[in-house]
Amino acid sequence: MRAIITGIILSLAVAAGAFAHDTTRERIVDDEGAPAGLPFSNAVRVGDTLYIAGHLGLDAKTQMPPADAQDEARLVLDGVKATVEKAGFTMNDLVSVTVFCSDLSQYEAFNGVYRGYFSGGFPARAFIGSGTLIRGARFEVLGVAVRAPAPAAGSAAAH
Amino acid sequence: MRAIITGIILSLAVAAGAFAHDTTRERIVDDEGAPAGLPFSNAVRVGDTLYIAGHLGLDAKTQMPPADAQDEARLVLDGVKATVEKAGFTMNDLVSVTVFCSDLSQYEAFNGVYRGYFSGGFPARAFIGSGTLIRGARFEVLGVAVRAPAPAAGSAAAH
Amino acid sequence: MRAIITGIILSLAVAAGAFAHDTTRERIVDDEGAPAGLPFSNAVRVGDTLYIAGHLGLDAKTQMPPADAQDEARLVLDGVKATVEKAGFTMNDLVSVTVFCSDLSQYEAFNGVYRGYFSGGFPARAFIGSGTLIRGARFEVLGVAVRAPAPAAGSAAAH
Repeated sequence: MRAIITGIILSLAVAAGAFAHDTTRERIVDDEGAPAGLPFSNAVRVGDTLYIAGHLGLDAKTQMPPADAQDEARLVLDGVKATVEKAGFTMNDLVSVTVFCSDLSQYEAFNGVYRGYFSGGFPARAFIGSGTLIRGARFEVLGVAVRAPAPAAGSAAAH
Repeated sequence: MRAIITGIILSLAVAAGAFAHDTTRERIVDDEGAPAGLPFSNAVRVGDTLYIAGHLGLDAKTQMPPADAQDEARLVLDGVKATVEKAGFTMNDLVSVTVFCSDLSQYEAFNGVYRGYFSGGFPARAFIGSGTLIRGARFEVLGVAVRAPAPAAGSAAAH
Repeated sequence: MRAIITGIILSLAVAAGAFAHDTTRERIVDDEGAPAGLPFSNAVRVGDTLYIAGHLGLDAKTQMPPADAQDEARLVLDGVKATVEKAGFTMNDLVSVTVFCSDLSQYEAFNGVYRGYFSGGFPARAFIGSGTLIRGARFEVLGVAVRAPAPAAGSAAAH
C-alpha cells in the first residue's frame, strides 16, 4: 500500500511537472544571418512559444537587398525558416506573421513566394505598408510560432 | 480501497489534462471578410490564445475604404469583432492591439469609435503611423486575445 | 489511511492549481506616463506574460519628443522599464521587442542607448522604418515579456 501511494505521489509530481506552463527560455542567435554584435537575438523560445525577430532578405555578399523582389522574399523567408528550424520548430508551427513592406506593388510577388513555405493552412498575417526599411529592404518579416508538445510527453498523462 | 486509489489516479489524469498548457490549434478563416485564396487565416487559436490577423475596413461592395474615416474604423473593428467571436472569444479578451494608420490626423476619430468596442479596461495598444496601406486603407488592426478558462473546468481542481 | 489519501487529494488540487495555465489578468495603467483617459493600458499581464503597449519618449513638460535622439531613446526605454517593473517584471524578461522608427538615421543612436537596458542576452527584435509617428516621435517601442515562475512555486511540485 505504501508503495502504491508512493507511486501515486511520484506520478503526481511527474504529471504536474510535465504539465507546468514551461517558461524556460533559450535565445537563438545566428551569427551568419545577423551581423554579429547587434543587440538582438534572432528568436527567443519560451517553453513551446518562439518569438521571431524581424528578418531581412539581404544578399550574403553585399548585405544589401537583391535586385529582384521575389529573390528578396525568398531570402527573407529562408532566413525565418532557418531560425525557426534552429529552434526545433517548423514553418507550419507559425501562428502569426507580420510583413512590413516598403513597396506595396510587390504584394503579389511576395505572396507567390510565401505560399511555398507552408503546407496545410496559413498563419494569421498582417501585411503592413511601412516607411523606408533598414538597408532599403522591401520586406521585413517577424512572427510567433507555437509547437505542439511531443506525443511522448502528452501520453504520460494517461499512465 | 482499490476503487478509491483508482479514483485518485483518474482524478489525477483528468486534472493534469485539464491544466495542460493547451497547444491544440484552430485556424479561423472568414471567406466573407477576406478575399478567398489569400495566404492567411483571419486568426489562429492556440489553446486559450488567439492571434488575430491584420484587418482592414473595406466596403463590402467596392472592397475599398469608405469615404468617412469613422465608417472605416467601424468596419475594421466590426471585422476584428466578427473574427474574435467566431473563435469563441469576446472583444474584452483582447490583451494587445496594434493599429497601423496611414493618416495620423484620424487618431481622435479612430479612438472615438474604438472606445465603444470595450467595456471595462482597454488592451495594451500601439498606434503606429505607417506608410501607404493596402487598398489605400487608413487603418489596419491586429491583436492578441486570451480567454479565461471556463469556470466549470477550473472548479474540477477542487474535486 | 483516510488522512493520507485526503492529503494526496489536497496535494493534487494544490499542484494542479500551481501548474494551471494562469490566465488571470491585470491591467497596468500609468497615469503619469500616458495622458489620462486615452483608450489603452500601458500593459496587460496574463499569467506570466506581459503585453506592453507602444511607448513614446516624450518630454514630461512639453509632451513632445526632446531635441536629441538619444535623449528620446532613453525616455522611451525608461517608460518601458517603468511599465515592466510596475507589473513585477524586469527588462531581462522581455522576449520580443518591436521598435518603430520614423528616422532610420538614428538606428545606431538608438542601439547605443538600448544596449544599456539589458544584462545577458537580448530579446528578439524588429526595427521597422515607420511613417510619421504620434507627436512627431522618432521611436515607438512595444514588446512582450515572460517571467519565470518563482522558485517557491516550482519547488511545490516536489512535495
